[in-house]
Amino acid sequence: MQTTDQGIKPFLDDNFLLENSTAEILYHEFAAKQPIIDYHNHLPPDEIADDKKFTNLTDVWLKGDHYKWRAMRTMGVPEKFITGDATNEEKFQKWAQTVPFTIRNPLFHWTHLELKGYFGVTELLNSASSQRIYEQCNGLLQTDEYSTRNLLRKMNVKVVCSTDDPLDDLRYHQQVREEGMDIKMLPAFRPDKAILIQQEQFPAYIEKLGGVAGADIKSFTDLLQALKDRMQFFHEQGCRLSDHGLEQIYAEDFTESEVNTILTKRLNGGSISDEEARKFMSATLYHLGCLYAELGWVQQFHLGALRNNSSRMLRQLGPDTGFDSIGDWEQASALAKFLNRLDTEDKLAKTILYNLNPRDNEVMSTMIGNFNDGSIRGKMQFGSAWWFLDQKDGMEKQLNALSNMGLLSCFIGMLTDSRSFLSFPRHEYFRRLLCNLIGRDVHNGELPNDTEWLGGIVSDICYRNAKNYFGY
Amino acid sequence: MQTTDQGIKPFLDDNFLLENSTAEILYHEFAAKQPIIDYHNHLPPDEIADDKKFTNLTDVWLKGDHYKWRAMRTMGVPEKFITGDATNEEKFQKWAQTVPFTIRNPLFHWTHLELKGYFGVTELLNSASSQRIYEQCNGLLQTDEYSTRNLLRKMNVKVVCSTDDPLDDLRYHQQVREEGMDIKMLPAFRPDKAILIQQEQFPAYIEKLGGVAGADIKSFTDLLQALKDRMQFFHEQGCRLSDHGLEQIYAEDFTESEVNTILTKRLNGGSISDEEARKFMSATLYHLGCLYAELGWVQQFHLGALRNNSSRMLRQLGPDTGFDSIGDWEQASALAKFLNRLDTEDKLAKTILYNLNPRDNEVMSTMIGNFNDGSIRGKMQFGSAWWFLDQKDGMEKQLNALSNMGLLSCFIGMLTDSRSFLSFPRHEYFRRLLCNLIGRDVHNGELPNDTEWLGGIVSDICYRNAKNYFGY
Amino acid sequence: MQTTDQGIKPFLDDNFLLENSTAEILYHEFAAKQPIIDYHNHLPPDEIADDKKFTNLTDVWLKGDHYKWRAMRTMGVPEKFITGDATNEEKFQKWAQTVPFTIRNPLFHWTHLELKGYFGVTELLNSASSQRIYEQCNGLLQTDEYSTRNLLRKMNVKVVCSTDDPLDDLRYHQQVREEGMDIKMLPAFRPDKAILIQQEQFPAYIEKLGGVAGADIKSFTDLLQALKDRMQFFHEQGCRLSDHGLEQIYAEDFTESEVNTILTKRLNGGSISDEEARKFMSATLYHLGCLYAELGWVQQFHLGALRNNSSRMLRQLGPDTGFDSIGDWEQASALAKFLNRLDTEDKLAKTILYNLNPRDNEVMSTMIGNFNDGSIRGKMQFGSAWWFLDQKDGMEKQLNALSNMGLLSCFIGMLTDSRSFLSFPRHEYFRRLLCNLIGRDVHNGELPNDTEWLGGIVSDICYRNAKNYFGY
Repeated sequence: MQTTDQGIKPFLDDNFLLENSTAEILYHEFAAKQPIIDYHNHLPPDEIADDKKFTNLTDVWLKGDHYKWRAMRTMGVPEKFITGDATNEEKFQKWAQTVPFTIRNPLFHWTHLELKGYFGVTELLNSASSQRIYEQCNGLLQTDEYSTRNLLRKMNVKVVCSTDDPLDDLRYHQQVREEGMDIKMLPAFRPDKAILIQQEQFPAYIEKLGGVAGADIKSFTDLLQALKDRMQFFHEQGCRLSDHGLEQIYAEDFTESEVNTILTKRLNGGSISDEEARKFMSATLYHLGCLYAELGWVQQFHLGALRNNSSRMLRQLGPDTGFDSIGDWEQASALAKFLNRLDTEDKLAKTILYNLNPRDNEVMSTMIGNFNDGSIRGKMQFGSAWWFLDQKDGMEKQLNALSNMGLLSCFIGMLTDSRSFLSFPRHEYFRRLLCNLIGRDVHNGELPNDTEWLGGIVSDICYRNAKNYFGY
Repeated sequence: MQTTDQGIKPFLDDNFLLENSTAEILYHEFAAKQPIIDYHNHLPPDEIADDKKFTNLTDVWLKGDHYKWRAMRTMGVPEKFITGDATNEEKFQKWAQTVPFTIRNPLFHWTHLELKGYFGVTELLNSASSQRIYEQCNGLLQTDEYSTRNLLRKMNVKVVCSTDDPLDDLRYHQQVREEGMDIKMLPAFRPDKAILIQQEQFPAYIEKLGGVAGADIKSFTDLLQALKDRMQFFHEQGCRLSDHGLEQIYAEDFTESEVNTILTKRLNGGSISDEEARKFMSATLYHLGCLYAELGWVQQFHLGALRNNSSRMLRQLGPDTGFDSIGDWEQASALAKFLNRLDTEDKLAKTILYNLNPRDNEVMSTMIGNFNDGSIRGKMQFGSAWWFLDQKDGMEKQLNALSNMGLLSCFIGMLTDSRSFLSFPRHEYFRRLLCNLIGRDVHNGELPNDTEWLGGIVSDICYRNAKNYFGY
Repeated sequence: MQTTDQGIKPFLDDNFLLENSTAEILYHEFAAKQPIIDYHNHLPPDEIADDKKFTNLTDVWLKGDHYKWRAMRTMGVPEKFITGDATNEEKFQKWAQTVPFTIRNPLFHWTHLELKGYFGVTELLNSASSQRIYEQCNGLLQTDEYSTRNLLRKMNVKVVCSTDDPLDDLRYHQQVREEGMDIKMLPAFRPDKAILIQQEQFPAYIEKLGGVAGADIKSFTDLLQALKDRMQFFHEQGCRLSDHGLEQIYAEDFTESEVNTILTKRLNGGSISDEEARKFMSATLYHLGCLYAELGWVQQFHLGALRNNSSRMLRQLGPDTGFDSIGDWEQASALAKFLNRLDTEDKLAKTILYNLNPRDNEVMSTMIGNFNDGSIRGKMQFGSAWWFLDQKDGMEKQLNALSNMGLLSCFIGMLTDSRSFLSFPRHEYFRRLLCNLIGRDVHNGELPNDTEWLGGIVSDICYRNAKNYFGY
């Protein structure tokens, strides 16, 4: 049954999310043409190096996608069909049955955007279409056109930055660079495990880090030296970007000797108080920040995730399996203190701040203004809406907060943050929303009707700002 | 004076809040037909048991409605005309004078929806119409059609769940069940007074609880046993639902012996520190949670109200008289810890989380995803917008947060949370908003145009999900 | 290049921000005609007393406007061209180059509203038009029509309340009153420096305060007496309003003797703990609150700014130069305790609460309801969107929160909070947004179509409520 109203826009047509003619022009004439610099994601470098092909749609699409898993669990689908021993086909069936119940969730849009953009599938995924779509896509996945690199090329991706542990030998990054791959694949440095001193595996991790850095880490100085060595190595492999995933920024006062005592206590198996942990993390973040500035890197902070809420499922499936949520810690004061400490010593690197709780949008969008000091255009960035916020409402709120309290025109734009090769239509989604917000303002008389000028700003946000910011 | 523009929708017509044809179809063909399960309210059971009739509109409409009282106080109306010794007619006059100044507040919509839905009054309430409307409605209230049960039947209410203290003998619930009333009236268990150990009346309350449970409460074990006994009694009377009103969830670490010491100190008139209180409340909430799971109940948590802000008016009028507001405590970490503790031991009952501060919508809508484990469809619920948020903006934000970060389709929907027999049009209001959001998405091309499918989801949210969830 | 769509509203025409005919009627027939009471701003009294003329557009428009400075710094403009030794013309050029990149920021609207409203300039400001506009405006600024008083008269300003330190001798306020200026210029009492006991300059400030009050401040009693004397002096000069800029309200328990000890320690150069500081500030705020009530003043609280985040730039440029942002402290509990303490003793003055973090809108809009006690219409006010929130989105959110959780009709409306004589179109902006929200509701069928009645409420909010509230 359909409403027969003439005013209904078809679902997911060429002008999806574009509500007026200016939005359409801005998107089709400016945004859509821009290449993609995906400066933060979790793609597996080996699969790009190997130019892997996937055997079926479950493999490329459901495996590892905890967004879909959460939806299926909410629908009452047993774990067997999610991460368990059901067949790929059974798992796909369960997902297909779930899809119609995901309306108004970004999964509904992602799903059909991805089926259309990569596979040309335009029918809706549900129980009835499940088998047909599964077979059609599996057929295509066998072809060379659907290798990882070709999937990236299909989306006009020029640069991808993976997220790598300091322990990583970056062999795949080296391999593709030597090979001269047309897509730049660069590493990013994510030293969380060297910072989160209260985690059970911290001492073992530090031991491994010492091993890789060729040094025995006995002191805080040793630790910093090992990290610095790894950063130097990463830098040589083209890394220009770090990343941190933290509940909050830590900016306690500390002395080197205090921190050294705390670290050695922990390495010797001693127990660390919360206050001691905060001191250690404050010190490490500070020193890393200084090193990033020295190397000319960009530092990223992803703040506010409350992770691994279900101990039971953490034991069963490990981290990053769909049991994380949004936290509500205070962010502003410590963040200001941390950034100021670096700024005071002229050691503040280019910085991107991402918040997971949208109630912090205004804190972040005004915080960056405190340290944009005229030295570099858009030095401090309020990062694109992330994880749970990576949907229409979340993105629009981020874009609006940034617009109202900073300069949207200096924004370096979108990244996928994804583990999947099929997530690149998220750039398209972002671009459509961006063009639509500007187009709406034009039609409301809130912006002048000059698409050449506005299209230039759109092109900047989609591609050129990131290109200049990172120097890619 | 009226704007003569053709594009103006008449106020409060049949398509109130429905902005396009799809929204209209979803509402009129699907939502409006569904019966009502009002699974959380504060209706007085005796008035249903007695099938009471009201003598005048002030009695049924203004008495006890602290939303209206706040508005009148803001307008500068003296307390005499609100809760004081003015006549019913004078009080109604003052309310009528206030109504035109409540524009854009939900009171303006509730007022005219209720006058229209129950009494067929379509003119606006103000000084000029006050006397006329007062008399017309008073006349109707004398008739049998306006007894409490008939007011519920007029709204197609199938189930109402009251909110009852563990001390309650539930005689009215028993009475109507024995009588075979066509509307199910079920109790819900609200043990706040047994938890809030720092309240002045706590020791006296515990003594009464012991009396009712036929036991002398001397220890924490005694307290739990008494609560368990009351729960068993409530269960026999059809109770399948508990409720807690708390500033925050408490999830401190505790030992039974610590908690026992704290309780006995308090019962002996000693003073309890904030930390001790949190330990006691953490322990009690935990044990109640386990009992709820054992009995197969649903547990509700209403979090974040800052109550009784005016000591002067609390002394004068008591609690729940319009001097409460929205608090801003941190919610996420303790809530996660509490739910995880229960989940780890397989003691996590079906749970509904309600937040009073809308800035916590995203915390709540992602928190439920951590514990939706595939066992039951929609096991964890993010409850409908509550109290101050029970209005268009608040409801839309709740629906959007739930949609974006969870599955709207699994939502058990609306409840009145009201003390008034005239509040049931709030279900209509909710349903119109729900249909409008979906209808808007269809017309914007963000959802496919298939009203049969979408209407099914609407019917689920309005009635069928709650029916399955509670087993009514 | 322009979109040729017929449906595009011209930028900044007479119906700017007004989306339908009812909004237009409400604005043009009601709102636009109201005079302005600008009850909180930072205009320099001497420039009004002297009826100063400005030599050029940089002088009147860029000097002191840290909103523009932040935008320029974000664009990478060196400090030389912002606060440095570049020429006025060079600075203007840099600003003009920045303007096209401020789209969707309020600066873009303010800029063109102010150019149009004061100077009749309708072309867009950018590099190309920079010189032409600079010269045209400079020419006008030489004429008598552009003296400070005439700039205020052009905007129909009847009252301006400046913001003054207790030390101020208010000579300019006295001068214009004696002279019989047609615009009321009244002082407001802002004693932050007597409260923020941890600031470096506190002891020196207290010494000066003693000097001005003709007393040696040795004790807390002395301090209160000196403040009371200054308040009496301010009162005689027409002051009826105080203001406080604080991160949070402080409402610790304290004794007079504790506070006295803390103050004398600090005055003798001792160091004060955070807890001691909070006690002192709690006591001082409480006593000031009592004095405001006795004098019949209105007290204002601006809560939540995180100030002076860049130590480097604070040293270089001083405070209020664009390095402040939005904080995220808890606000509700202490605010409730503070207001209740005053209310309990019948010492609660009329109060306006302003929050800087929009996530606190709902806390503020419900908090006022706790203390609106029927004594005065709209006694407690949720102040208009402030600083970073002084833009369309921020204002609409404040208006909506107030509407949904309080009575919009009792609102005393807009103020500029500005240091600039060219900021008064912000009242126009606010009025357009207000009329548009109401007009939208009428066209959506959410309000009855009765512009006479709604226009009356609009007129109240724009002017008459403030007139009655302050008694001007």
